[in-house]
Amino acid sequence: MSQILNDVLAANQEYVADFGDKGDLALPPSRHFAVLTCMDARLDPAKFAGLAEGDAHVIRNAGGRASDDAIRSLVISHKLLGTNEWFVIHHTDCGMELFTSEIMGDLLSQSLDTATVDENGWRDVGEGPGSTEGRYINWMTFKDNAASVVEDVSRIKAHPLVPNDIPVYGYIYDCRTGALVEVPEATTAGKAA
Amino acid sequence: MSQILNDVLAANQEYVADFGDKGDLALPPSRHFAVLTCMDARLDPAKFAGLAEGDAHVIRNAGGRASDDAIRSLVISHKLLGTNEWFVIHHTDCGMELFTSEIMGDLLSQSLDTATVDENGWRDVGEGPGSTEGRYINWMTFKDNAASVVEDVSRIKAHPLVPNDIPVYGYIYDCRTGALVEVPEATTAGKAA
Repeated sequence: MSQILNDVLAANQEYVADFGDKGDLALPPSRHFAVLTCMDARLDPAKFAGLAEGDAHVIRNAGGRASDDAIRSLVISHKLLGTNEWFVIHHTDCGMELFTSEIMGDLLSQSLDTATVDENGWRDVGEGPGSTEGRYINWMTFKDNAASVVEDVSRIKAHPLVPNDIPVYGYIYDCRTGALVEVPEATTAGKAA
Repeated sequence: MSQILNDVLAANQEYVADFGDKGDLALPPSRHFAVLTCMDARLDPAKFAGLAEGDAHVIRNAGGRASDDAIRSLVISHKLLGTNEWFVIHHTDCGMELFTSEIMGDLLSQSLDTATVDENGWRDVGEGPGSTEGRYINWMTFKDNAASVVEDVSRIKAHPLVPNDIPVYGYIYDCRTGALVEVPEATTAGKAA
């Protein structure tokens, strides 16, 4: 068995042993809100936003982007499970600022193996084969972190399946300090009607 | 200010006060793996899988489905940030088992407000207006939890941008006990080539 799999299952056994009465929690989030944020390993939304099990939906993808899939999740969150306030939280030092869709397409066409990066940019060290399929995917990179939060909040608010009265708060998590820093233009864009 | 926003920011201040040396964590996940799971409020992947900040990517959407967006995130996770083992973790009592794309389309066409559910099924109590846009979205519901894990692991393994040598483990989180229960057919489908 893989060491990682072994470690995850061992940690899970400890969690189960101390599970308490969490088995009684209801499906709908008890605090009626949802968080959309990045998959980045340094982010622990439950810890940085004070969530206990059962409190809130957490949606995560590369960049914390308001992709169609994130909006699918948010609409389910409100329409079927009653959340009525949403957070969009990007973060400093995000990997999505370090490449472009063109770079990703080029790297994947060379090999599927993990590339390396240094001050000269990305370099593929894999042996291949690669695939040109990466050229048909929008990788949803961005250059300006605050602008990306504004764009994502605006896209959510403009969606025809999102009610006007759901406020959407735009924030950037600072990976150096753990702090949530407001993006005021995003929060303004995300105000309830 | 909303009570929820106030509470989240207060919890964040406590997190910042006790942040320690986590500001030095590197961008790539130190334990080189990624987890794809559901947005469900009862699931805390860091707790149930034993993750500290910096350890692993966590991708979450409604159902923990291997959507195009989840695959976008997984490919970035491996190609640029070096993860080389992935988990797909669905869970018992998932909301995605309680409706169909047709039901969701009907409900949203009546109103965008939160619907109610009882033994007679979903019922829209909103005042409208609704939108027929929901009929153009695949909501990615499922009826058989284990089968959905097998499907998602199989889709990931079959993707042209996913290297053969990445093992993908299929599990179901039991909301009553906190336990991760293997879906053996999924893990077999997810084995490294």
